[in-house]
Amino acid sequence: MNDEVFALATQLVSPSYVAQAQQARRARETKFKSLLAQRRLPDNGWDEGTLRLLLEELALMDSNAFIGNAGVGEREARIACPLVRSRHFGFGHGIGRSGDIAEEQPKAAGSSLLYKLTNFLAADAIKRAGALSVNVNCLVLPVATGMTVTLTMLALRAMRPAAKYVVWPRIDQKSCLKAVAAAGCTPLVVESLLEGDELRTNVPGVRARIEECTQCMKAIAAASKHGRLDAFIQSTDKNFLVPVGGAILASCSAEFGAALIAKVSATYPGRASIAPILDLFITLLHLGADGWASLLERRQRLLPIFRERLGALAASHGERLLVTPNNSISMAVTLTSGGGGRSVTAMGAQLWVRLISGARICAPDAKKKSVAGIAFTNYGSHCDAYPVAYFTAACALGATEEDLDLFLKRLDKTLKEWKKMKPLAAESPA
Amino acid sequence: MNDEVFALATQLVSPSYVAQAQQARRARETKFKSLLAQRRLPDNGWDEGTLRLLLEELALMDSNAFIGNAGVGEREARIACPLVRSRHFGFGHGIGRSGDIAEEQPKAAGSSLLYKLTNFLAADAIKRAGALSVNVNCLVLPVATGMTVTLTMLALRAMRPAAKYVVWPRIDQKSCLKAVAAAGCTPLVVESLLEGDELRTNVPGVRARIEECTQCMKAIAAASKHGRLDAFIQSTDKNFLVPVGGAILASCSAEFGAALIAKVSATYPGRASIAPILDLFITLLHLGADGWASLLERRQRLLPIFRERLGALAASHGERLLVTPNNSISMAVTLTSGGGGRSVTAMGAQLWVRLISGARICAPDAKKKSVAGIAFTNYGSHCDAYPVAYFTAACALGATEEDLDLFLKRLDKTLKEWKKMKPLAAESPA
Amino acid sequence: MNDEVFALATQLVSPSYVAQAQQARRARETKFKSLLAQRRLPDNGWDEGTLRLLLEELALMDSNAFIGNAGVGEREARIACPLVRSRHFGFGHGIGRSGDIAEEQPKAAGSSLLYKLTNFLAADAIKRAGALSVNVNCLVLPVATGMTVTLTMLALRAMRPAAKYVVWPRIDQKSCLKAVAAAGCTPLVVESLLEGDELRTNVPGVRARIEECTQCMKAIAAASKHGRLDAFIQSTDKNFLVPVGGAILASCSAEFGAALIAKVSATYPGRASIAPILDLFITLLHLGADGWASLLERRQRLLPIFRERLGALAASHGERLLVTPNNSISMAVTLTSGGGGRSVTAMGAQLWVRLISGARICAPDAKKKSVAGIAFTNYGSHCDAYPVAYFTAACALGATEEDLDLFLKRLDKTLKEWKKMKPLAAESPA
Amino acid sequence: MNDEVFALATQLVSPSYVAQAQQARRARETKFKSLLAQRRLPDNGWDEGTLRLLLEELALMDSNAFIGNAGVGEREARIACPLVRSRHFGFGHGIGRSGDIAEEQPKAAGSSLLYKLTNFLAADAIKRAGALSVNVNCLVLPVATGMTVTLTMLALRAMRPAAKYVVWPRIDQKSCLKAVAAAGCTPLVVESLLEGDELRTNVPGVRARIEECTQCMKAIAAASKHGRLDAFIQSTDKNFLVPVGGAILASCSAEFGAALIAKVSATYPGRASIAPILDLFITLLHLGADGWASLLERRQRLLPIFRERLGALAASHGERLLVTPNNSISMAVTLTSGGGGRSVTAMGAQLWVRLISGARICAPDAKKKSVAGIAFTNYGSHCDAYPVAYFTAACALGATEEDLDLFLKRLDKTLKEWKKMKPLAAESPA
Repeated sequence: MNDEVFALATQLVSPSYVAQAQQARRARETKFKSLLAQRRLPDNGWDEGTLRLLLEELALMDSNAFIGNAGVGEREARIACPLVRSRHFGFGHGIGRSGDIAEEQPKAAGSSLLYKLTNFLAADAIKRAGALSVNVNCLVLPVATGMTVTLTMLALRAMRPAAKYVVWPRIDQKSCLKAVAAAGCTPLVVESLLEGDELRTNVPGVRARIEECTQCMKAIAAASKHGRLDAFIQSTDKNFLVPVGGAILASCSAEFGAALIAKVSATYPGRASIAPILDLFITLLHLGADGWASLLERRQRLLPIFRERLGALAASHGERLLVTPNNSISMAVTLTSGGGGRSVTAMGAQLWVRLISGARICAPDAKKKSVAGIAFTNYGSHCDAYPVAYFTAACALGATEEDLDLFLKRLDKTLKEWKKMKPLAAESPA
Repeated sequence: MNDEVFALATQLVSPSYVAQAQQARRARETKFKSLLAQRRLPDNGWDEGTLRLLLEELALMDSNAFIGNAGVGEREARIACPLVRSRHFGFGHGIGRSGDIAEEQPKAAGSSLLYKLTNFLAADAIKRAGALSVNVNCLVLPVATGMTVTLTMLALRAMRPAAKYVVWPRIDQKSCLKAVAAAGCTPLVVESLLEGDELRTNVPGVRARIEECTQCMKAIAAASKHGRLDAFIQSTDKNFLVPVGGAILASCSAEFGAALIAKVSATYPGRASIAPILDLFITLLHLGADGWASLLERRQRLLPIFRERLGALAASHGERLLVTPNNSISMAVTLTSGGGGRSVTAMGAQLWVRLISGARICAPDAKKKSVAGIAFTNYGSHCDAYPVAYFTAACALGATEEDLDLFLKRLDKTLKEWKKMKPLAAESPA
Repeated sequence: MNDEVFALATQLVSPSYVAQAQQARRARETKFKSLLAQRRLPDNGWDEGTLRLLLEELALMDSNAFIGNAGVGEREARIACPLVRSRHFGFGHGIGRSGDIAEEQPKAAGSSLLYKLTNFLAADAIKRAGALSVNVNCLVLPVATGMTVTLTMLALRAMRPAAKYVVWPRIDQKSCLKAVAAAGCTPLVVESLLEGDELRTNVPGVRARIEECTQCMKAIAAASKHGRLDAFIQSTDKNFLVPVGGAILASCSAEFGAALIAKVSATYPGRASIAPILDLFITLLHLGADGWASLLERRQRLLPIFRERLGALAASHGERLLVTPNNSISMAVTLTSGGGGRSVTAMGAQLWVRLISGARICAPDAKKKSVAGIAFTNYGSHCDAYPVAYFTAACALGATEEDLDLFLKRLDKTLKEWKKMKPLAAESPA
Repeated sequence: MNDEVFALATQLVSPSYVAQAQQARRARETKFKSLLAQRRLPDNGWDEGTLRLLLEELALMDSNAFIGNAGVGEREARIACPLVRSRHFGFGHGIGRSGDIAEEQPKAAGSSLLYKLTNFLAADAIKRAGALSVNVNCLVLPVATGMTVTLTMLALRAMRPAAKYVVWPRIDQKSCLKAVAAAGCTPLVVESLLEGDELRTNVPGVRARIEECTQCMKAIAAASKHGRLDAFIQSTDKNFLVPVGGAILASCSAEFGAALIAKVSATYPGRASIAPILDLFITLLHLGADGWASLLERRQRLLPIFRERLGALAASHGERLLVTPNNSISMAVTLTSGGGGRSVTAMGAQLWVRLISGARICAPDAKKKSVAGIAFTNYGSHCDAYPVAYFTAACALGATEEDLDLFLKRLDKTLKEWKKMKPLAAESPA
């Protein structure tokens, strides 16, 4: 409501009350102004009222919301079902154009503005999370991590058409390999090194592989200098607590970052869903810098507690917490005995039945498995022969001490049973 | 978003697109301005985007939404459950003050403004519905019809403390009588006159009763001149298609209307729920003058069709539609035979089982019943002895031809069965 | 989804995953079952998913939601605007019937069930709040406190038609007096006693008044024995953190409670809005017994802190906290000097401008004021002559330490200015 | 609510009312059952109540909604912002697994079920739209058309690693070309043929190109037989009126369809957003077979009217409607004179200012433009030299006669001005 409307309101409600409401309104406009001018997380998370107001305002900037708009194109953001419209706040045009996902959409000034702001907010959040002083370039993509890796691979391929290989430190996550394969590249696997309990990236191995490639392909010799693009991809769900669906391609490289991001953005063919963008936008404003900091801080604070309590529980059952000081998210506990001869994977089912989700069992074996055309030994354990079976648990962003309590209580029970389990009876003859 | 914010937006999105969005934004401000300046139904119903924007804006005018508000009163519109807050758009202060329901609430400029506007919109809607040229005064109350009648009675009592009686043309609706009784008054029943099939208000009877009263109570002789206050009360649910919960007290009387309404408003002790007000406000803006006109027009158009088709169906079963030309909402069909000797009320259950709701069975009998302390014969039929049993159906606002089709199809089946029904077997001895 | 649907789901999704989902579904059905069987607050607050599911289920029990319902009554819960429908989860029939607000509505089994449950939940919450061992009877009314007092008065009047007077220990809240007056009764004011800083109810005075009345009115002599009905009325907004709009009439009296409540319920003429009921229902399930206990406990814990810090601040400005040990919600601070000769009420405006809402200024004077026909001296201060001016602040349910911090910071500034304020200059001659 | 809960309800509400509610509940369970058993569009669109109930039920099948779930994985569908959670009905896990987008997600039985059902519903809708008797295989992808083309290209490449070329009948839509290029393939452009006003696919040209390729690449000779995969991709927004963000890959080919779809599904690396799936699911159930049919029918009916009226308007301004009988969506009007010598593209801006969106201006010129590495003449006009300038308008799904009226009115004004436009004055010397 603008000043004229407020002036009219004083004919119905006392001017002093209207004046105060108007002042409150201005405080909100100031928040909007700061957001557009500073393009970073607000110091404090926004209240829902301010957030909703901005969303309504942005949605009303798109042409499908214009009163009296006559749409005669094929794509006019018509939405058949009111339930669908309302859950998208009226946004219907998606983001991007045929040319480029980051290009503004002429029919959708609001959506375009929202997208640009989200990219800035995400960059600021990443900067704060890493306490970085350098600039971060960000492109939030409305596809999850794997697909974002594929897109990045496709962009890289277009940038270096002769390139065929991707040097890949082994990590047994199908999406990675498939993303590389989907882009038509061949992964060159570099096995990790076992240091104590911990699998570490084999950096000399990676370097060797790169050199080896370089030898093979004189044509792209120059490119090898660009070996470090310093780009990283992260999922929005794990890192910003939104529904699965988006990922962020970010780069701190002053030299290569912007170019790579522009290429990926231009590689995305056509428009895309605004949904994962919108989720991130809302969440970042909802959190603000303080909410974001406290979310990170809580995880940080919980991590040693989690480790200590899980270690103690493991010890009480004759197992031990693997020593993996370089992994600040997941931890693992050995599974050396119990189960009455059953495969340790059977314990996974028991955890699941007890409503523990996300604990993964790694049971080394010598089986071969082919993923994306590459043969692996002991796939799922990240290396050919890890010395011991174990299960993992993560101290992820958003986890609470209550989650931990619940988990440990149930794990205790499950381990107790597992240890006591009797062997499966041999089937009796008929 | 004000002009400064739009200006900042042009640094992120093309100025020409932003300019168009800004123009669209202004079109909405113009709607807000017209609403506050003209205080009548907009010519066309508002789109949901505009409506939501206004609701957000109004809710943010209340002190509980002010950023940084420090509330130390007992009543600060704190809302515990997010689901509750969101369904009220953040409105929490209700309407009114201890002094008067129509008084503005200092902590809630937005709610107060919304309430004032709703009263104006309701007055305009009533004026349009009746094609009235005179001014209409309106007070929308967040209590349903019966309670509104009670409040009005209480206000009238306070205006004329010596008054004891309410002359009441019989209509067998408990709420009416109870409202009168609740206000501590005594109803003087005037039976209706049967003209053909139709029960008509006995106007001379009413006049006689008033004179009679006047004789009894010299003290209020003067007041009798005020016999016609021309105030009427209508429910918001039946007349404006909102959930049950509100009613409108309206008056066209230039002489007495404003005073009565002010008195009722001042009689309401304390604050009240904004919910039924909000529903009406949203609905009237959603409909607009055109939507409202077409809703009225559709009912008008459907009425003769409804009558004709119901009459034809009745005739095909040997019954007839009662001739009640002065009732423009409900119609009735005789029930002269069938049921195998069962009471005609048994047919009601059969309609109900067939998912026909709202058809009421009137079966005259000579039973006495006391309602609110008054003895009635044949209560429920609006008169001591209606000559025939019948059931009713209404062509209410919002009804569609599809409703009618469905009803007639099922009624046809039910009547067929009813006519063929065998007598209940006498219980056989054990 | 029933077992058949889950069975079909196993043809699309692995049976083990479906089985777990089905088990989760059963856990929710168990919650529903407990609610209906035990009719008290769940031990833990419900998650939003469970709550929404129950609301959807209840709303679908009303006839307007039946697939294929043919409504031909006047009141078929048609809702014109989708936004309105959705904010009420589809509930449209309100509660009650013409006979009684607590009577079930045949067209609305879901609404009726919800209302009954709400009354039980409210009774349980009140019992827990007071740690009562006796049974509590409750009627939640969809009208705010003042109107509920009026209704109760009307019911009492109907129960004792000859009664004329209401003995009323003075408390300067307009709603109270107006509610009594609206019911056509005459309040007999009993001034409070000043004990130290504190105004206490003059119990002997109340007793004397009752006896006096008894002398006057032989006819209701018997009734005097019923002097203690032990019924109390409380607003739902202040006491349960929902939007303004409802109140609870409760009684612990085994002898008179049920009868009074039934009478009030039967006094309410006609249907009523379900909105305030729905808000309370949702909130109580959202809180659960644990959430409710911790809300009460937080206020209890905050109270001495609030008192101490406010007292210290008052002292630092040469004022003092009034000693009112029997008031466990509000506290008051003297205002003995400052303002440069301005009336102390002027300080109220300054607090308001600083976004402090709810602090009330009481400035004793000898003015006469008539409220609901009764002449008062020094109205607003609860007694004819309170010795000192003061302002109040409340430690209300839902208040947080952050609210307190904010309040004290701003109060400090305001008092500083107030103390330093220069006298208003005499107007200079032209 | 199961039978036990209903039984308990009868202790609070009359058994007959509860019984009817229970029957209504069963009618809804029957709808759920049919949906899972028949896996096709319901005959009639579902009411919002039924739809919401199913969504709540499905969302509660996911592990993040389980009461008492202890999530210790990295991905536990935690959602930070309530506004985000609520707009997704609580769904948080996305769809798919690292292996395959169509694979079920163990933590999310509800999401997985919803996705499978959506694929079936989409197939049924496509079948009905084309009145097909053959079976249709469908994969709904949560990425828009362009990205879906890319994914399909990547899958095809993986299926035929030696393939390099994509024979591409020219259509000047960047997404197409970019999708092909993104997948690392080379498009072989086949120019269209001008037949009358109409550009038609040069089928012999396409055939020739394929043969030519075949000659080039002996290695994939066999594959050429597979020339017709009969797979088609369509956007969900244009074809099903949901927000931009999804596309459907469909195939009627009994021989190759399933394999191609499985490959594309397996090519998608990792999980993906459920948002576009959810939108389509909701919309298809909202529409039902009847709503879908009437949507298609309305467009069909509007098409000749649109053509006739646009043609008449064109004629009245001395222009003509191009004769393009094979295009059943878009139509075009020549722009032969006017504009005072300005480029015809200038008329686009004028339409835009008049709030006409979607009308595209095609002004043939001889300019060269490179898209995705291919040089085009006269890009944007779909052929090297279209004989006349024109603008287009579409009679798209969801368009109404009101849209047409509005468009024609404004177009009339715009053309009038365009025809009268004075030449731009030559700049006067300083």
